[in-house]
This record gives sequence, structure tokens and C-alpha cells, in this order.
Amino acid sequence: MSAPVTPSAALSNVRGSAIRDLLSLTERPDVLSMAGGLPATELIPQERIAVAAQRAVGDRDLLQYTVSAGLRECRDAVARYEGIDRPEQILITHGSQQALFLLAHALLDPGDLVVVDDPVYVGALQVFQSVRADVRGLPLTGSGIDTDLLEQWCAAGARPVIVHTVSSFHNPGGVTADDGRRAHLARLAERYGFWIIDDNPYGRLRFRGTEPTPWRDFGDRVISLGTVSKILAPALRVGWCVAPTAVIALVERLRQGADLCGSTFTQSMVADLLGDDAWLDGHVAVIRDAYRVRAAALVDALTMHLGSAAEFTAPEGGMFCWVRLPGVDTTALLDTAVAHGVAYVPGSAFAVSRDAGDCLRLSFAALAPDDIDRAVAHLAASLG
Amino acid sequence: MSAPVTPSAALSNVRGSAIRDLLSLTERPDVLSMAGGLPATELIPQERIAVAAQRAVGDRDLLQYTVSAGLRECRDAVARYEGIDRPEQILITHGSQQALFLLAHALLDPGDLVVVDDPVYVGALQVFQSVRADVRGLPLTGSGIDTDLLEQWCAAGARPVIVHTVSSFHNPGGVTADDGRRAHLARLAERYGFWIIDDNPYGRLRFRGTEPTPWRDFGDRVISLGTVSKILAPALRVGWCVAPTAVIALVERLRQGADLCGSTFTQSMVADLLGDDAWLDGHVAVIRDAYRVRAAALVDALTMHLGSAAEFTAPEGGMFCWVRLPGVDTTALLDTAVAHGVAYVPGSAFAVSRDAGDCLRLSFAALAPDDIDRAVAHLAASLG
Repeated sequence: MSAPVTPSAALSNVRGSAIRDLLSLTERPDVLSMAGGLPATELIPQERIAVAAQRAVGDRDLLQYTVSAGLRECRDAVARYEGIDRPEQILITHGSQQALFLLAHALLDPGDLVVVDDPVYVGALQVFQSVRADVRGLPLTGSGIDTDLLEQWCAAGARPVIVHTVSSFHNPGGVTADDGRRAHLARLAERYGFWIIDDNPYGRLRFRGTEPTPWRDFGDRVISLGTVSKILAPALRVGWCVAPTAVIALVERLRQGADLCGSTFTQSMVADLLGDDAWLDGHVAVIRDAYRVRAAALVDALTMHLGSAAEFTAPEGGMFCWVRLPGVDTTALLDTAVAHGVAYVPGSAFAVSRDAGDCLRLSFAALAPDDIDRAVAHLAASLG
Repeated sequence: MSAPVTPSAALSNVRGSAIRDLLSLTERPDVLSMAGGLPATELIPQERIAVAAQRAVGDRDLLQYTVSAGLRECRDAVARYEGIDRPEQILITHGSQQALFLLAHALLDPGDLVVVDDPVYVGALQVFQSVRADVRGLPLTGSGIDTDLLEQWCAAGARPVIVHTVSSFHNPGGVTADDGRRAHLARLAERYGFWIIDDNPYGRLRFRGTEPTPWRDFGDRVISLGTVSKILAPALRVGWCVAPTAVIALVERLRQGADLCGSTFTQSMVADLLGDDAWLDGHVAVIRDAYRVRAAALVDALTMHLGSAAEFTAPEGGMFCWVRLPGVDTTALLDTAVAHGVAYVPGSAFAVSRDAGDCLRLSFAALAPDDIDRAVAHLAASLG
């Protein structure tokens, strides 16, 4: 007889990740998977990381504990990388996901209103559910979240504490918020007193188009999250938040209990890698070039194999393309698609308040261009 | 004008770590610090860790994301290390502190009764405060927490959800729970339906006396926490919990939102290091020998310099000795002690429900024997 286990009310409120459940079904050798969210393994700069590891491990002090806010050298390197003058505004976390989790627990009480993108980054939804927030999805438009609708909500009395958004190369939506949306959201934050959390793992992966204005130019109600997972390696587990020092102090206090501190070792490696400007610029250019070619292959394949059956916006960066197949139930189609040799994530996995049952997310990051073409051909075939 | 920042009610409930605040005061080059909680830096097995790092970085797959429960090889290695047959009962965390944090958030609702050691490991207190638990301190005796008193509480109607304890080489108390206390606590857990969380960072560091019976022999209401921080290196940030699979499943679900996963890279290194039995046994013996010598130096110094003014139990392992100086206000004494060239942590920093104002915690791990003697001489001098 094993003992009965009762989850907390907070955990009971957390939706499991349908994506993770899917991945086990779809990661079969005979299936071309566009379902995953991993960066391309072959583009991880293994040789340079090995040099950084060897350097760090040569200093025993870098194998000890560090402070909760992160190794000084790493905070300095991230500040330079983010174009921030004051490293005190940066706290290093165990991936940017931890930054989001700590911010939510530091700033939110149960029942607080949190506005998220709809479709949503599922990891964000899980965090806000775990603090029992009142989560509302704000529709994503082609130019970012629908700030006009948010203004209507606020005018009607809604008082969000946090508006969370992936404003650059949305996951799963693919789109980027333009400067007009950013400025509007920042004005609303100022007027109604909420925090904008801009979750930005993909911002450096722009391979077409022009950069938006940095969030910090739009006022002091913006907390930005960053990570090295998509440009260096996920296994370094180094992310960060950029926030006013009063917010940093709260996150730091909560972090002591959450896991004491991050890894001095991998933070020191990241300080080395981010600080090697010339090498980093060249390396990021290599990733951008590869993803540009893969995204172009996806656009070509969607046009050729699906034609007017598919609606999508050609990606300008990041790893994802959001595709609408009007009239198709993409959740119901998945089994057939997998049988045809292709996997994707159905839109329903990312839905908050709006239906996305005829949409799907395709990642172009992890497949070679020829495989992308084949995968989309399989998808077209599965439509019959 | 910067934006106003309001902490969550949960965070407002968390007591800051007095120890961390102290450390900045006491980490001066002219002060011999027995205040810290760090393992000896010079005993970190840097050369062997460098070999493990080089191996891991040679495989690009080990630089990708891993699953939330941890790298399979690492779970297997920890299972062998812990003498557990089923690796499914192990979840790898970012230090054992994260395991405690996730368990608390997965199992506790606000207001739930949690019983902790008094004096307490401050990191545990912070965790339980962050879920707004009703925290009650159970006095620590020379043979572990006072399970007789706990039985009285339960008989009077108290229904703890979790009893957290550091049963081996207590931090800060130094003592180890004997088999009688363990068996009694396990019986109470069975009868009253609570979880025992045994936080065990120091268990391998026994340098005198005999091993207690493993907790798993006392039933299935025990969750054990472990870490490599005190035997390999804190910067690997690899800890774990051993728990029934139903508990592991809850922690895994919460962990997806907390930080997605740990580091494939350092988990792979730990699998290599823990799996190298012959080397590991020799290395742990080196640490034990060094700490045995340091603990003996501390006992000698306390006897010589303080005599009957100090009450303490000679350590059998771990890193700490808890000293009572009857009639002395150790919080008030600290400034004088630092001026005399020695730092410690006053007992008040660890107090829950009982006063510990005449006690202090001394770490013997990080100082050479000669320095330990000098430090205690300074302490005696500061008493005037």
C-alpha cells in the first residue's frame, strides 16, 4: 500500500503541457518532426563552449556557490549584451523560465488578473496557473497583441497586474509586435499601473526585416527576459530578467528559497562566451543564416504543397511558423499526419480564450531544407 | 519616477536570511569566519571534474534541453548512489533546495501545518513561508527532533502535512537523529498521514560513530533530499529527491513551469562522477578525514579556550557545531567578536518558536586547524 498523495490547489490549477505529451508520440525515427521547440543541435557552438568549460573549471572558486543574483562577471556580460548601463538591473536565473516563475510568485496574489497572448507560450500559462492568477488571453494580431482590445478591457475596469507577451518572433504565433503596438502597450502600462513582461528568447534570431525599438525606450514598466538557450546552448541553463532594482530585490529574496543560486561554473562560461564579441557576432550570423534558409524552405514548401489551403505569415526570425488551415481540425488530423510521416503541434495546445482548432505550429529550426519540403508534402498528403 | 513595486502576500511572508546579511559584514580578510555554510573550496575535486566536463562537452546532445525529471543516466547514477532500486523514484533538481521548494508548492496549501526543526535550516523556513504555511518549530534534542512532543501535538489534534527535518548532522544543530527517533517519527507519519521530508546534504560526511538505519527502511512516508554540493561541487547544482512515484509526478509537473529542466551538461558530469565508485570512495574519504581533523581542532579549542563557559556536542560528521554560551547574548556579542577577528552566526538567526539567543553556529569545514584554534581564542577574548 502506498500513501495517498494530494496535490496543492495551486498545482491542481496547472494544465499539463500537451506539447510534452505529444512529443513522446511524435519522436519516432520515421517521422519528420516539426513539433519540437528545440534549437538546432548541430548549430550549438560545441568547440567554443569546450574552451569556456576548460577555462572555468581551472578555477576552484568557480565551482563554489555564488550569490542569488548571479555571478558578477555574468551580470556584467549580460548587461553589455542587452545594452543596459546598470548590471544591478539584471538577475541571472536558471533559464528565462525561472525568471518568469519567480516574477509571478514575487508579484502576484491568487485571483490577480494576468493577460497573456492568445495563442500563448504554454510555459507562461503554466506559471500563471501555478499562482492561481485569473488568466485572460489577448488575441495576437499580425502586428502583435491586440492592444486596442486591451485598452477597452482596461477602460471597462479590468486591472491586470502583469501583461505577459512574446513580442519578437512569437511562440507559437511567429509574429513580431511593431513599434506602434509596443508604444501603445507601454502607455497603457503607465496609465493602468501594470507590468509588461516581455519574454524574449528569440530576439537575436532576426534574419529578415528591421529591428523594433528596444522596450526600454518605452518606459520603466517593462521587465525583459532573456536567455542563451537559443544562441549558445540550452544546457548552460542561463537566462535573466532585466527589471527595475526594486523588482530585482524581490526576485532575489524569493530565489534564496527557490534554489539558493545558479551555477557559478556555467555562469562563468556564459560571461566568457557573451564577452567574446567578435566570435559571438560571427556565431549568431551562422545561426541566422541557417534559420533563414530553413524558413525560406518552409515558405516555399507551404506555397507549393498547400497553396491556398494554408494561411501564414512568412517568418522574419525565430524558430516558428503559425499556419491556419481553414476548415481543418488540426487536432483530429494529427494521427493521420503522423501516419504520413510528419508531426506538428495542433493550435488547440496553445489556445487560451479563443479557438485555434484550425491552426498548427511548425518549427523550421531543427530540420534540413530538404526534410522541411518532405515534411510539408506529407502534411499535404495527410489532408487527402 | 520609478514605478511602485508591491510584493505578493506570499513573498511578504518570507523572512530574509539573516545569515546572508551577516556574511557581507563578516567576510573581511582580517576576520576568521566560522559563519559560512560553504564546503571547503580546496577539497573540491577540480581535476576529476575537469575530466567529466571535457567528456560531457564532447557530445552536442548533452548541450541540449533534457526532460524535467532529469537525464536518465543521472537518475540511474543517483539511484545506485542512494541504494534505490527504482530510478523512477528519483527526480533531479537544481540543488536539493529546489527539490524542497517544488515539494512545498506541490503538496501544501496556504495555512497547512508544517513542522520544522527548532533551530531550523533557514532555507527550509523560507520555502514554507513562501507557500504561507503555518510553520511550527519542534525542539531539537541531542538525539534528533523531539518526537514525543510531536506525538503530544498530534494527539491534541495537530495535523501536519509535512514534517521537515535535517536528521543527519543537523544544520545548525550538529546532531543526528538516532534510530529510535526515526522509527518513532515514521510511525507518527503513518498514523497521522504526514510526509517526512528528510533533508540530507551531509549524510556522507560521517567521520565518527555509526550510521543510522536508512530512512527507507522505516516506511513509505519519507521523502529524502540529496545533493552533490558537499561531496563534489556546489556549482554543479545537482540535487535530487527520492519519493514515491506519485509524488515525483507532481513535482515533475510543477517543475515544467518552474524552470523547464536542469542542465543536461552538469547532470551528465554528475552521472560520470557518481558512477566512478572507486574514485568517489577515495575522494569522500579525503573530505571526511579533513573534516575529522578540523572538528577535533574545534573541540580541542572550545575546551581549551572556553572550558565550562561553552556547552556543545562533539560533531560526528557534517560541517557544523552548535555551541551554547549560557548567559551570553550572542547576537549582541557579534560586533565585539568581529572586532576581535572572528565571525559566527548567532543562534537567533535559526530560532523558530524557541529562544536560541545564547547559542551560536560554528562551521569547522572551511578553516585550517590552526585557524580554528585562533578563531576560538578570539571568541574567548571577545567574552572579556
